[in-house]
Amino acid sequence: MFLPNAREVLDHKIALARSYGFTPVSPGDLAVPETETRHQRGLAISAINESLMSSADLIIANLTPFRGVAADIGTAFELGFMCARGCPAFAFSNCTENHFERVSGLYGGEVRLGPDGRHRGPDGFALENFDMADNLMLDGGIAARNGAVITRKVAPDRLFLDLTAFEECLNLAAERLLKTAASA
Amino acid sequence: MFLPNAREVLDHKIALARSYGFTPVSPGDLAVPETETRHQRGLAISAINESLMSSADLIIANLTPFRGVAADIGTAFELGFMCARGCPAFAFSNCTENHFERVSGLYGGEVRLGPDGRHRGPDGFALENFDMADNLMLDGGIAARNGAVITRKVAPDRLFLDLTAFEECLNLAAERLLKTAASA
Repeated sequence: MFLPNAREVLDHKIALARSYGFTPVSPGDLAVPETETRHQRGLAISAINESLMSSADLIIANLTPFRGVAADIGTAFELGFMCARGCPAFAFSNCTENHFERVSGLYGGEVRLGPDGRHRGPDGFALENFDMADNLMLDGGIAARNGAVITRKVAPDRLFLDLTAFEECLNLAAERLLKTAASA
Repeated sequence: MFLPNAREVLDHKIALARSYGFTPVSPGDLAVPETETRHQRGLAISAINESLMSSADLIIANLTPFRGVAADIGTAFELGFMCARGCPAFAFSNCTENHFERVSGLYGGEVRLGPDGRHRGPDGFALENFDMADNLMLDGGIAARNGAVITRKVAPDRLFLDLTAFEECLNLAAERLLKTAASA
């Protein structure tokens, strides 16, 4: 919902999800009530998003790095929320550099392996080095729920627009979930 | 657990939590089993952290911005996880600049209010402007569970070491939870 053409991209994602047999929920499904302050408005949007998540059976999270080395932090909250609910979780990222490579880049490559077996930047802070797309809680939460993280290299100007990896998640989720439901 | 002196800071936090009547769980409570690959090790640590969270009754999340404009993304996952479990949630940050101010800084102040009522950077991406410490899902999740986000300005070299705001969360949590339990 941060994109300049958020509505257009969202409509495309909704149409794709429907084409795979899912009924998507999305920001914008429910109107935000009038509030007196900006802070109250933020709380109202949060409440709507939580209620939509609580009505959903699975999540496909966009982990494409956003404004820095990591995925959008609101998305990380939502992924944790859905994992705690025991829901199948999938994710995609239009960046194929993994977490360790991105944080190393942030340190300009000045990363050293210490005597404790951990890599650290010049500030002494440790880097996770687990061949994962992002922080281990995210990749781990998805793996523990039989999901998958699909990464794909796209043209820089398509970083937040290319939906190929998203569609691959839909395909995987449909195979694993809708067929299970159909045979149940 | 990213800090150079992580064990020392963790021990200090554990002692503080105990002094307020809580029984804290922390990374390091359980040994990580031997694994063949780095990826498997990451998954094993995730599984341990999830089991510790599932054994806990509340969370105090450190939302101090980490390696960029937002809180640590693993912490955001954990906060979402605990919110979905219906647990009381508190947070602290040793940064008093709010989310909007930090993202504006990332854009060098080049932020304009558009005709749709949203602030956007030069890349066209929207900024949340809700007088919140971080993304609205985080602040909103905490508020919805009767928690609080405590922010505090500290000396730059104490950014990840000062535990005053953490202790304020402990104090609030003890007032709201332990007294309730005692009177129940």
